[in-house]
Amino acid sequence: MQRIFEYSGTMDPMSDDTRVYIYDSTLRDGAQTHGVDFSAADKAAITRELDAIGFDYVEGGWPGANPTDDAFFRSLPETTRGRIAAFGMTRRAGRSADNDPGLQAVVRSGAPVVTLVGKSWDFQCEVALGIEPAENVRMIADSIAHAATVAEEVMFDAEHFFDGYKANPGFALDCIKAAHEAGARWVVLCDTNGGTLPHEVFDIVSEVVKVVPGTHVGIHCHNDTENAVANSLAAVRAGARQVQGTLNGLGERCGNANLITIIPTLMLKMGMTTGLTDTDLKGLTKLSRSLDARLNRVPSKEAAYVGERAFAHKGGLHVSAVAKDPKCYEHVDPDSIGNKRLILVSNQAGLSNILARFDEIGMEVDRKDPRLARLIELVKEREFQGYAYDGAWASFELLARRMLEDVPEYFKVDSFRVIDERRWNAKGQLITLSEAIAKLTVQGERNMTVAEGDGPVNALDACLRKLLLPYYPQLSDLRLVDFKVRILNPEAATAAVTRVTIESADGSGVRWTTVGVSENLIDASFEALSDSINFKLHRDGATV
Amino acid sequence: MQRIFEYSGTMDPMSDDTRVYIYDSTLRDGAQTHGVDFSAADKAAITRELDAIGFDYVEGGWPGANPTDDAFFRSLPETTRGRIAAFGMTRRAGRSADNDPGLQAVVRSGAPVVTLVGKSWDFQCEVALGIEPAENVRMIADSIAHAATVAEEVMFDAEHFFDGYKANPGFALDCIKAAHEAGARWVVLCDTNGGTLPHEVFDIVSEVVKVVPGTHVGIHCHNDTENAVANSLAAVRAGARQVQGTLNGLGERCGNANLITIIPTLMLKMGMTTGLTDTDLKGLTKLSRSLDARLNRVPSKEAAYVGERAFAHKGGLHVSAVAKDPKCYEHVDPDSIGNKRLILVSNQAGLSNILARFDEIGMEVDRKDPRLARLIELVKEREFQGYAYDGAWASFELLARRMLEDVPEYFKVDSFRVIDERRWNAKGQLITLSEAIAKLTVQGERNMTVAEGDGPVNALDACLRKLLLPYYPQLSDLRLVDFKVRILNPEAATAAVTRVTIESADGSGVRWTTVGVSENLIDASFEALSDSINFKLHRDGATV
Repeated sequence: MQRIFEYSGTMDPMSDDTRVYIYDSTLRDGAQTHGVDFSAADKAAITRELDAIGFDYVEGGWPGANPTDDAFFRSLPETTRGRIAAFGMTRRAGRSADNDPGLQAVVRSGAPVVTLVGKSWDFQCEVALGIEPAENVRMIADSIAHAATVAEEVMFDAEHFFDGYKANPGFALDCIKAAHEAGARWVVLCDTNGGTLPHEVFDIVSEVVKVVPGTHVGIHCHNDTENAVANSLAAVRAGARQVQGTLNGLGERCGNANLITIIPTLMLKMGMTTGLTDTDLKGLTKLSRSLDARLNRVPSKEAAYVGERAFAHKGGLHVSAVAKDPKCYEHVDPDSIGNKRLILVSNQAGLSNILARFDEIGMEVDRKDPRLARLIELVKEREFQGYAYDGAWASFELLARRMLEDVPEYFKVDSFRVIDERRWNAKGQLITLSEAIAKLTVQGERNMTVAEGDGPVNALDACLRKLLLPYYPQLSDLRLVDFKVRILNPEAATAAVTRVTIESADGSGVRWTTVGVSENLIDASFEALSDSINFKLHRDGATV
Repeated sequence: MQRIFEYSGTMDPMSDDTRVYIYDSTLRDGAQTHGVDFSAADKAAITRELDAIGFDYVEGGWPGANPTDDAFFRSLPETTRGRIAAFGMTRRAGRSADNDPGLQAVVRSGAPVVTLVGKSWDFQCEVALGIEPAENVRMIADSIAHAATVAEEVMFDAEHFFDGYKANPGFALDCIKAAHEAGARWVVLCDTNGGTLPHEVFDIVSEVVKVVPGTHVGIHCHNDTENAVANSLAAVRAGARQVQGTLNGLGERCGNANLITIIPTLMLKMGMTTGLTDTDLKGLTKLSRSLDARLNRVPSKEAAYVGERAFAHKGGLHVSAVAKDPKCYEHVDPDSIGNKRLILVSNQAGLSNILARFDEIGMEVDRKDPRLARLIELVKEREFQGYAYDGAWASFELLARRMLEDVPEYFKVDSFRVIDERRWNAKGQLITLSEAIAKLTVQGERNMTVAEGDGPVNALDACLRKLLLPYYPQLSDLRLVDFKVRILNPEAATAAVTRVTIESADGSGVRWTTVGVSENLIDASFEALSDSINFKLHRDGATV
């Protein structure tokens, strides 16, 4: 484990007091995220991933709440390092715990851990539930005691605990004391509305651990003031030893506390231990991106620790300082969480950036080669025109290889024409058709063809492939997966310079990005399309 | 100002000690964000917005570093509430301050405030710069003293201050003391690598303010552990009274401290004051989204305070609890920052939005008019297709007026055709030409014409105006000032649905925005162009 700074404030990593338990709520609270939908199979697969990396608790859902959660609990995945929790509510007012069907569904779900949520803010009891505070305390005690007779381990989530404590500390503490005394292994303090600040969490948890030992206290935060991570860390510093959160901070409104950030901070910077070993920790970047892939979300490039740009370096001096000693510009070693340094080729491009990039793609170049200086000049000149190579590695690689190696000319464009026509068709409908005609020389032969498409770029794409496929069958599995247009000088409006970025993929799962720039949108698109095809052909070793 | 909870830990809002100065670095540090590119015109427009809402300092860029920043400083926008800062470095080793061209470009840029960055970590001086620590202190003192003879106000940004303090507190303090004594109005403590935790920031700033008064101390944080906001707040609690950050947390790697989150937290939860009044604060949501619109970025729905879902409530019990008392599930009143509650599954919001918009444009509509329900249906249907009327009020107004009033048909499109051709010209150069042909019926007469342009949309724009100008001379001062393309379903790549947004202006200085959506980019552009012309003609009372 790398700790760059041993700051005096951190705790002794060898004491037992350093063990923090990680409780994942991605499958329950995280499932509240707009646009996120887990199937029962997703839930089982994610549970296995969390178990394998060393999370202590995986909250699978709310038995009885919906068919997906029921299906998940009917066939619980086997776990070896973590335990699955079923989430539910304390019994309703005016019922006994064993006569409340909602509570019974949770307690008897088969999960080894049962987590029950209840109120701890007197105002909420009165306004939202319309019950007496004293009855609320009895509901907590009864429900926890009953669950403890069935489940291996029981927890109490104290909803609105911090707002409740500010309003009436005595009542809030009574609620969690009741849970603790009734047999809850953990009482978890929830900042339900997400409005509490780190110094408040620290002060309040410091009071709580005088009543319930910190090794029985957990924290559950929301990100409504961008403080969910800081609040969780403040609670740990005040003595709490369980942290609830979600992968990548999923959750309703502004999200839950992000375990992907909290875990490395606890382990690398605060001298704490978790169920993860240092080797497990190296799997964190993969865990984060695997969830995004499952949900078909674009991973956040800016994510702390695991984002693609979390260890990105721009510019000459900066990069050479990193090469001298990484701690000049890196707060932890990217390898410790399985991420890597990203050296950007930017308009401050220096030789060191470009050489670092060649290393990554396995291109062997003599650093004294005089053509390198010309390449740097060319990159700078093109970035000034509007090219952005730091997002378009394939175009950069083509540019470099064409200057330093022999790249075959797979095809040569003699001319092309794209026609977009809006007219009335025979049925009296107003339609717009796009049609592209291209004339290319391929392997010494002159060819021309025509294709239609939805819009000019789509038509041009169809036309190029139609013409090239007979010569290069490896293009059959080439797919365009994203297409972006950016106007570089919007004040020139429709005469502005346009940058088109295209992301492509093939059957092997590899993705690459290319860029084109022109005052003419069609020209820019053609350039990016052409780069994409050339990159694929060169990588696959196509011959002319 | 609404404060839901008056927690004992907050400071007395009436004491002078509560004034926190806000320093925006969006245009300098924020410009390091991947994919973010400001033109000089963007910089001027954003400066005006920040000045209008009450930010204290706007850092415009680095004079001498690139042509954009030079253009910005050559014609500085006038400000009334805030001051513009020029950023640069302390003098180089072995030169005098007045003989360092880089420093001179910054000091003599004409900006009233000069902010100079320098080292404060002995390790950095030795490894990155290769200079003696004592020389570093002299470089700071000389540069600040020199800048203070020219600029109205000078600041010192202490790079790597927290890492420097942990390594060698005496040296780090010597650096900022030298700056303070040489006449710096502020010394700003930078957590350059973003790895410092909130309790460390609190402890270290508490020591700093014993040496330099807190009213002269600023904080500058990065989000590498998701603690940039918490670190900034911790510094304020320890006594610092200037906060540097960016709009929406833009910045390299994981971003800078997000001022959009910090400002309301200071004002609504910590009893602090800023240059913003409570009324200014209501403009925060608009400020955040306006920056995204300018950069053609999708606003984060999950953003703290200002995100579309920051106050989202899902159906049922939750919504009825919010109806009983919003503080059940809201940490602040959404209105305080100009955001609004989002009750999911509700069409009542639709009608009130639309009526509010009619009020704004002075359109009198009977709220019992049955056509209103049809208008809401139509807007919903079109938003589902990809139209976004939030940013395109002129298109919305046209849609509404066409349904509720008589809007003349100024012209009718019979057909159009756009041809983009790449070919070799007579001089042997490869050129791409775009040409548009349109056939329109105007005031009962059938017309056709042809025009060329830089790209298909520019050609179509030129063709439409050429044809319409003889009928509608008021179009002579119509200008397109911005043109944006967004792909709505990028996974469909070049066949994706495209949204084109066009901003127009005329001689009167009024600006309006229109939108078009289609699978065909040319079609979408034509729709937005056509709306823009129709809007202008209707507003000017043109007759057919």
